[in-house]
Amino acid sequence: MPAKNPIVIDLKFDPAAIAKILETAFSDRRSINLADPANKDADLSQADYALLWKPDADLFQRAPNLKVIFSGGAGVDSMMSIAGLPDVPIVRFVDRSLTTRMSEWVVMQCLMHLRDVQGHFRSQRQRVWAPQHGPEAADITVGVMGLGVLGCDVLAKLKVMGFNVIGWSRTRKQIDGTETFDAGGLDAFLARTDILVGLLPLTPETTGIYNASLFSRLRRDGALGKPVFINAGRGKSQVAADIVLAIETGTLGGASLDVFAVEPLAADDPLWGLDNVIITPHDSAVSDERALMRHVEEQIARFERGEPLQHLVDRNLGY
Amino acid sequence: MPAKNPIVIDLKFDPAAIAKILETAFSDRRSINLADPANKDADLSQADYALLWKPDADLFQRAPNLKVIFSGGAGVDSMMSIAGLPDVPIVRFVDRSLTTRMSEWVVMQCLMHLRDVQGHFRSQRQRVWAPQHGPEAADITVGVMGLGVLGCDVLAKLKVMGFNVIGWSRTRKQIDGTETFDAGGLDAFLARTDILVGLLPLTPETTGIYNASLFSRLRRDGALGKPVFINAGRGKSQVAADIVLAIETGTLGGASLDVFAVEPLAADDPLWGLDNVIITPHDSAVSDERALMRHVEEQIARFERGEPLQHLVDRNLGY
Repeated sequence: MPAKNPIVIDLKFDPAAIAKILETAFSDRRSINLADPANKDADLSQADYALLWKPDADLFQRAPNLKVIFSGGAGVDSMMSIAGLPDVPIVRFVDRSLTTRMSEWVVMQCLMHLRDVQGHFRSQRQRVWAPQHGPEAADITVGVMGLGVLGCDVLAKLKVMGFNVIGWSRTRKQIDGTETFDAGGLDAFLARTDILVGLLPLTPETTGIYNASLFSRLRRDGALGKPVFINAGRGKSQVAADIVLAIETGTLGGASLDVFAVEPLAADDPLWGLDNVIITPHDSAVSDERALMRHVEEQIARFERGEPLQHLVDRNLGY
Repeated sequence: MPAKNPIVIDLKFDPAAIAKILETAFSDRRSINLADPANKDADLSQADYALLWKPDADLFQRAPNLKVIFSGGAGVDSMMSIAGLPDVPIVRFVDRSLTTRMSEWVVMQCLMHLRDVQGHFRSQRQRVWAPQHGPEAADITVGVMGLGVLGCDVLAKLKVMGFNVIGWSRTRKQIDGTETFDAGGLDAFLARTDILVGLLPLTPETTGIYNASLFSRLRRDGALGKPVFINAGRGKSQVAADIVLAIETGTLGGASLDVFAVEPLAADDPLWGLDNVIITPHDSAVSDERALMRHVEEQIARFERGEPLQHLVDRNLGY
């Protein structure tokens, strides 16, 4: 049996962790890890597969014979704009761990705004006993924008916790027991939403979608007093200056942001210090590297057995 | 039809809120609200029912003909030691809102320790971008002590969020799909527990049960590094000095406390300032007064139709 063609790895993750995992992953073929300086000028022309996260700009020139591209994360926007992206299947990383960790983060942020954790921490620092009798989850509607695997898991778990939930996606998606809206229903969706959760992929249509106009259309007479914006999707979908202004003027009562247009967030960015805004450093749900390798191995095996690939990206939609 | 006998109300809640709700509650009988100074010397000898939370010490002397006693909360310990407690049915307050609010608080606290919210807030204050790759819920076992209505709801919701869950109660309780332990299995239960959630009623057996010895038996090699203690039950079940020492010496890695032996917690109490200890002012789940009155009205109607009362307290167990 002739040797199988190699897989190129270009993951802008922790290089040591990736190198360690590649010692045992892909046992039936060679992997060429571009994070290894020894592979700086390696010949990639025989590579059948590429596993990528924020790949080098010349990757597709160097590896012109790819049959399948694998994304190292749930999103693929970091590779869609790179010159020479070949017209081959692109497989997204969908993983139980990534999904449940994202739901942990989103449910926690919704509860923290519901239960005013920031106010409680302030009282604790001041050693002041100040019980609050705020609304309960059933008094609040969480609207989730983006109804992929992550959005659907988040909706289901928020519902179990007692929140009212509604969903929005560009094209209407049917979810049992949950009211959903499509592009034409955006205003109606926003008018019902007390806590907006952003889990949209980054596309030309979703760039800057979370802006002053959108914030102003959220429900204003809800039980929290003012609406809250939570973004765990992509940083370029939000207009940071509009978030700052919305918090300062009271259009938003709070926010939780895990993603930013430029990361790391600069130390002098005003977002760090805003009242009732929770900043996390894009660690809401990190790809587990071992699970990622298992997923790619499985999909390659399917592909080589002639079975259909799973979690394929729609090139026209961009996600 | 002769007038029905009155109900005595002695609730150490917000007097104005109770007075307002009593304007419309119990429309078929008189209510005697002891928070109203006009009722200071009222004749309570005809009262059939009493709705109580931390009642006056002479309540049962003044009202010697009670047929049923209703507690204003989920616990009944505040009345069990009062002189002259008659041998009549005592009904606990069980309420959807109280239950779901308790689960909001407990699930939020478990997630906040899992995702190191305190560490993230510290980084945010310092404007430092410091992603964390900690364990996920599936790596952690939450052990819940106390498997009443609240404990069972908490267990079910923690499970949905991805945590491993186990339960403990004095006498073994069967819960579908959840491993449970009884008094004899306490050590085995603690040895498996990364996050201990206390939801026990206060009885002589549970007074001081959360102490240095118990903390030292929690799992020490878990994914969080050190075990965490969360108490939303009763303050007198915990030994505060042991919590302080356990945090300072690293026997516990963190805690969330909503209840204290003496409330409000004194401003100079060391608990306020401990590292990774979250203090909330006994507002994890507050009785909704309107729901309480509806519940009492319903139970009185059942009683007067000759149907069995619900949520009865076992006098021997004390809960």
